[in-house]
Amino acid sequence: MTSSQKIALALAGVGKIARDQHIPSCEEGRDFDIKAAISRNGKIEGAENFESYDAFLENRKDIRAISLCTPPEVRFDMAKKAIAAGLDVLMEKPPAATMGEAQALAEMAEMAGVVLFATWHSRFANGVEPAREWLSTKKITSVTITWKEDVRRWHPGQAWIWEAGGFGVFDPGINALSILTAIIPGQTIVEKASLAFPSNRQQPIAASLKMRSAAGAPISAEFDWRQEGPQTWDIVVETDKGTLRLAKGGAELYIDGKLTVEGPDREYARIYTRFAELVRARKSDADYQPLRLVADAFLTGERHEVEAFIE
Amino acid sequence: MTSSQKIALALAGVGKIARDQHIPSCEEGRDFDIKAAISRNGKIEGAENFESYDAFLENRKDIRAISLCTPPEVRFDMAKKAIAAGLDVLMEKPPAATMGEAQALAEMAEMAGVVLFATWHSRFANGVEPAREWLSTKKITSVTITWKEDVRRWHPGQAWIWEAGGFGVFDPGINALSILTAIIPGQTIVEKASLAFPSNRQQPIAASLKMRSAAGAPISAEFDWRQEGPQTWDIVVETDKGTLRLAKGGAELYIDGKLTVEGPDREYARIYTRFAELVRARKSDADYQPLRLVADAFLTGERHEVEAFIE
Repeated sequence: MTSSQKIALALAGVGKIARDQHIPSCEEGRDFDIKAAISRNGKIEGAENFESYDAFLENRKDIRAISLCTPPEVRFDMAKKAIAAGLDVLMEKPPAATMGEAQALAEMAEMAGVVLFATWHSRFANGVEPAREWLSTKKITSVTITWKEDVRRWHPGQAWIWEAGGFGVFDPGINALSILTAIIPGQTIVEKASLAFPSNRQQPIAASLKMRSAAGAPISAEFDWRQEGPQTWDIVVETDKGTLRLAKGGAELYIDGKLTVEGPDREYARIYTRFAELVRARKSDADYQPLRLVADAFLTGERHEVEAFIE
Repeated sequence: MTSSQKIALALAGVGKIARDQHIPSCEEGRDFDIKAAISRNGKIEGAENFESYDAFLENRKDIRAISLCTPPEVRFDMAKKAIAAGLDVLMEKPPAATMGEAQALAEMAEMAGVVLFATWHSRFANGVEPAREWLSTKKITSVTITWKEDVRRWHPGQAWIWEAGGFGVFDPGINALSILTAIIPGQTIVEKASLAFPSNRQQPIAASLKMRSAAGAPISAEFDWRQEGPQTWDIVVETDKGTLRLAKGGAELYIDGKLTVEGPDREYARIYTRFAELVRARKSDADYQPLRLVADAFLTGERHEVEAFIE
């Protein structure tokens, strides 16, 4: 493949995640060429910049793929219009605000014959694919997820995460669930959940889940946004042939305590490599199991009130 | 078909719903013969009665179909074992406590080659199929659901409906959603939800939903368990060619105010006719959209606290 065969791409939502990850990954990669950008605030040099999404759709019918990096609340309508216009679509996580939106997009994409890639960036962390492979030949006896971070440090001033539909502590927690569902096969079931809501907030600041794998292994998850000091994003899997640990959100893989995989962050580079494969193979990749687990936790969870959260 | 070709059926959970509906429907119908019953308390005359589910599975391998009428919390494990034993399965509503359980059962049934029928009894009310047919040639402009009943009257002493996973006012509300999703095509999306939790309860006593049909029509639903006096289970659909109203939970159909369909309740008779068709055609019918709408309402809903509920 020569560089002249790069896929022309539009990018909607030129904000922090686009600048930090999407744009450099496209520029450094060999698969995509950002030919258009749609954003009310940001611009991308070397691309045609639009403020209006409809104007982009009207004027750049030569571009057949789009990456949606906008905040969740506008993403559904944008995705619908892109699919209707016949564009292949890459979506940032979470792929939708509800399971209904997610399923509707998958059905529309299938009907329209376009490629839909609902990304979960944590699945592309260094240790995840090697972990899946290592586990595929073992019998899993238990899984323990510990995802504890300081919301003041990672989400300063982000009021929307506390509003209805903002997911609260499941905003990071869904990253853990996306890794979990990538490394163990089948449908994971939420058996019990406990959600801690600050007295002044609509969304949980902490959650504790008891789940079970399709093969019957117990899975526990502790999500907490009140963690000061060291931050923890760990998944420990006990098996009949040793212990696997994914640390730092999947970036490092330990087998029986020995560091086996590490390296620089390549999550978004891998996402765009995968998107190119999907576009060329005309295949969609839209797995909503992480979102479904969050919905089930809300559906079945016990609520209890905790101290008000003042930022 | 002669009566000797009736399908041998087992029934698990000989409680109120089994006695009121399932058993008479089988006895009056021409499709099923209840050959075994599994229940810790109730017995069915003329059938072999088991207290142990495992003993039934072990001893009556001649019976190839089962109806699960047990309370929701034990139904998932029973369904899994029945599917693993190669039985065709009919499930009372709701088909599962979570979307995960529901999807797991559907996958297991497909792998095992058994028939899974996740029933929604309200879909078999007199007016529902005629309503679907009438609407199929109209353009729907809006839908208004009003489902208001007195919880003290319909659920006396049922503590579990107020516990985590008990669904609260969505226990009746899911009946309305099962009709809605039967009469309008495509995935309905929850756009906004507001849930009223009594200060002393884990589940909502009232809920207000703003939804949208796949074709874009606005749908509102008001569920309320605090309705004294007259009870309301109504769905009004405005179209380009007149107004349709389903009243009394789907039992009566009005077109432009004129009563068009009514008659004695035949919901469960139709359920067993349908189950026989599915068993003979080796087809499953497991539509989880009503449960998904409830999960999405919990996921995306605003919570607010209301007066404590004292029964």
